[in-house]
Amino acid sequence: MGNVGPTFTDCSLPLGEFKPLDLEEFRSHAHQMVDFIADYYKNIESYPVLSQVQPGYLRSSLPRTAPYRPESLETILDDINKRVVPGMTHWLSPNFFAFFPATVSTAAFLGEMLCTAFNCVGFNWLASPAATELEMVVLDWLAAMLKLPKSFMFSGINYICVQRTGGGVLQGTTSEAIICTLVAARDRALEIIGVENMSKLVVYGSDQTHSTYTKACKLAGILPGNIRLINTAVDTNFALSPSVLRRTIEADVADGLTPLYVCLTVGTTSTTAVDPLSQLADVAADHGIWIHVDAAYGGSACICPEFRHYLDGIERVDSLSLGPHKWLLSYLDCCCLWVKSPSLLVKALSTNPEYLRNKPSESYSVVDYKDWQIGTGRRFKSLRLWLVLRSYGVANLQTHIRSDVRMAKMFEGLVRSDRRFEIIVPTRFSLVCFRLNPSFLRSGPKRIELLNRKLLDWVNSTGRVYMTHTIVGGVYIMRFAVGATLTEDRHVVAAWELIKKGADALLKL
Amino acid sequence: MGNVGPTFTDCSLPLGEFKPLDLEEFRSHAHQMVDFIADYYKNIESYPVLSQVQPGYLRSSLPRTAPYRPESLETILDDINKRVVPGMTHWLSPNFFAFFPATVSTAAFLGEMLCTAFNCVGFNWLASPAATELEMVVLDWLAAMLKLPKSFMFSGINYICVQRTGGGVLQGTTSEAIICTLVAARDRALEIIGVENMSKLVVYGSDQTHSTYTKACKLAGILPGNIRLINTAVDTNFALSPSVLRRTIEADVADGLTPLYVCLTVGTTSTTAVDPLSQLADVAADHGIWIHVDAAYGGSACICPEFRHYLDGIERVDSLSLGPHKWLLSYLDCCCLWVKSPSLLVKALSTNPEYLRNKPSESYSVVDYKDWQIGTGRRFKSLRLWLVLRSYGVANLQTHIRSDVRMAKMFEGLVRSDRRFEIIVPTRFSLVCFRLNPSFLRSGPKRIELLNRKLLDWVNSTGRVYMTHTIVGGVYIMRFAVGATLTEDRHVVAAWELIKKGADALLKL
Repeated sequence: MGNVGPTFTDCSLPLGEFKPLDLEEFRSHAHQMVDFIADYYKNIESYPVLSQVQPGYLRSSLPRTAPYRPESLETILDDINKRVVPGMTHWLSPNFFAFFPATVSTAAFLGEMLCTAFNCVGFNWLASPAATELEMVVLDWLAAMLKLPKSFMFSGINYICVQRTGGGVLQGTTSEAIICTLVAARDRALEIIGVENMSKLVVYGSDQTHSTYTKACKLAGILPGNIRLINTAVDTNFALSPSVLRRTIEADVADGLTPLYVCLTVGTTSTTAVDPLSQLADVAADHGIWIHVDAAYGGSACICPEFRHYLDGIERVDSLSLGPHKWLLSYLDCCCLWVKSPSLLVKALSTNPEYLRNKPSESYSVVDYKDWQIGTGRRFKSLRLWLVLRSYGVANLQTHIRSDVRMAKMFEGLVRSDRRFEIIVPTRFSLVCFRLNPSFLRSGPKRIELLNRKLLDWVNSTGRVYMTHTIVGGVYIMRFAVGATLTEDRHVVAAWELIKKGADALLKL
Repeated sequence: MGNVGPTFTDCSLPLGEFKPLDLEEFRSHAHQMVDFIADYYKNIESYPVLSQVQPGYLRSSLPRTAPYRPESLETILDDINKRVVPGMTHWLSPNFFAFFPATVSTAAFLGEMLCTAFNCVGFNWLASPAATELEMVVLDWLAAMLKLPKSFMFSGINYICVQRTGGGVLQGTTSEAIICTLVAARDRALEIIGVENMSKLVVYGSDQTHSTYTKACKLAGILPGNIRLINTAVDTNFALSPSVLRRTIEADVADGLTPLYVCLTVGTTSTTAVDPLSQLADVAADHGIWIHVDAAYGGSACICPEFRHYLDGIERVDSLSLGPHKWLLSYLDCCCLWVKSPSLLVKALSTNPEYLRNKPSESYSVVDYKDWQIGTGRRFKSLRLWLVLRSYGVANLQTHIRSDVRMAKMFEGLVRSDRRFEIIVPTRFSLVCFRLNPSFLRSGPKRIELLNRKLLDWVNSTGRVYMTHTIVGGVYIMRFAVGATLTEDRHVVAAWELIKKGADALLKL
């Protein structure tokens, strides 16, 4: 059999009564943990942003089996400080400028504490009415802040038949939002063309669409050869071209294939490109394609009137997802999905086992969110976002977005002021894409890429700043993403000084 | 366009500086929340277990839009108490005996606080080495507690090539575990039979397999007509029959179809049936079928030697999932998945966008968990389970399982002592399946079902206990699931007294 490990029964010392939720212990330990966390936040700048450990560092320092007897909280917290923290890349550090930062706030932390504490499972309305109803309220609130059309909201709901309205739901990640809508679109299409024709379904995106899109399509049974990721170029700032999309679709139709779904992006991962929704919706509508908008990052900015135009045309798409964990201070993981026709989701995703049957569900007077998602169980997730929206108000959230954008513009200005560097695409949100300037370096592409790589590696190796890179249009660029919650002007300025220092050393070689 | 909602810009009062993570505010508010939660736990028995509100109760009492200006924590907590709590079904109530309870503990709460607070995103090793490595350690620890064979563990890992070992990963839910393994199996099969033959793939389970299985199969592009849910019966205690599985598979092969995947269950939702793994593995192995074991509920009991035999044969399956949020005190959501060939998961689920490329990943010396799951982002989820295992030790966790089983047996004894009731299947874990006894009632099946329904409805309408029902083999039964963390003997006894009182009133009519 190859069984391993100890028998866990060889110790016969008395252990006393076991109360996993003793209320006085809960209270005192949780207070202790609050202070531990507040101290971590206080000291966060003292840690290297990017962890400098080697693979295997932790496994080799921990026991190979769980303890048979309890250990004290003090011992565990000591291990967290000595063994875990050194191996963390500190996403909340104000010097974290990598990927897109994952933003946080006191209000969201409190909301998450509550969600955990209640531990109610809202797979259907009856299993926890408040969990379902608060989620509907919060998704409508955020929809209104984004000025989404009513067709995405529950607000017109009547409790005779909730299935006739649009509405929103919280998913864990954009990946789940895409899979759920894709499968809804797929099953609608298969009803028309027949399940035996699944191999004819074709989906569209651009080469800048998030990598999870391809994975989601493959998960849903779309043939890899039927996933079209259309090339973009610097002349459109890496946005998807409506005319190229049209040509691609028409070629597929001519080949006897069935165009199914297109994923458009508001704020791509590499460069925050924005696909032109209105024009692309024109193209897709002509072919009855399900249009999804992935606004994971850029969508949050659209709560400010000056950014809302990026969602122009949204009334013509089928679904929209947005990740408040990226830019609305909400901790991971939190993805909002709005759909115009939840009934299509429900059709594709509903289950109705006897052990979950109940009168409210059968009266069609309630929303059962299990039928809007991949899994069955679900937490009381809306509390977190509800606390953020109420504790800060729309006004402060707008201030927060604008502050990040202002800092990014400041960084862009610093880069532009140094002729050794160039900006690759105009800074639209809070990401700055730049590199060492070829016209200054006067070198071939390979050497230019090598120098940029070296500069980035050096900056990250200091542990004082963490930035990441990408390659677009064949060009290696550095990404400076402003937005960690604790970042202030001084951190941005210090990061720039560090980058300049690296360039000084590198270009003297 | 149909835009709605306020403009959110009509208020021009000064708001002051906005600091979403002010450390002193964080500390004081989080302490306040700890006390709020501890008080909720203290008062939990005073609330009706099953919420008695009507659909729409909350939506109609909340504003239609988010506030423009901040609201105080006091106002929000007051709303939680007055508006949210009354609409909750209290899963943590000691009088919650519905579904399977979702268990909790102080240690898991602390672990979740830490996970939230760190907010590090461990999509690949470098993005947070400690998050990846601790997860590997914790999954190995739990594997050893379950006496899983080494083929499911990282323990044999060498850091030259990690891809050659088995290992575990944390998923959100069983649904995700099933989808990931199913897609790994699917893609392996399609390599052999060709992607154009996806419609020939057939999957197997029983009519007791969790409802999410069918959904997962449909999501992965398995034709609904190719999902075989084999009937079970009371004479095998609702376990899947190896001989019937063999006949079903052979018929499909004879029809030119390709058997792909079978989901076996250790502890079904309706009655905690256990499929006989060894014998079923014999059948499946003959046809090269991927064997998954869903031990969401029953698996946790197998940390006790006296229950371990339910996993006999586990060395011959391909993957195993288990939900510590069900019975290992871990809060939602937490599902462990172990696989023998992670490389097949990675092949099906990997993404490699430029913006995530890094040296450790390219050296193949590390695990990148994004390639073991549906989405990209992931939290530092192992902290919660790590704190549970260390804070309590294996000994206390075994005590906890045994205590729940003991209370269920006690309830079973009470039911058996009353000739008006009957036990439907022997109580194996901590779920008791029972009903009003037909041989006492001397009525037809319809009236017997009606009386049982009425009894359950009455019990739940009191708000003093919450139980659920199921139908197996055409028979309506009540499920009494012991296991809410705060439940003590006295709650079980009181629930039985209430049920008897209901029966008294009902049978006098």
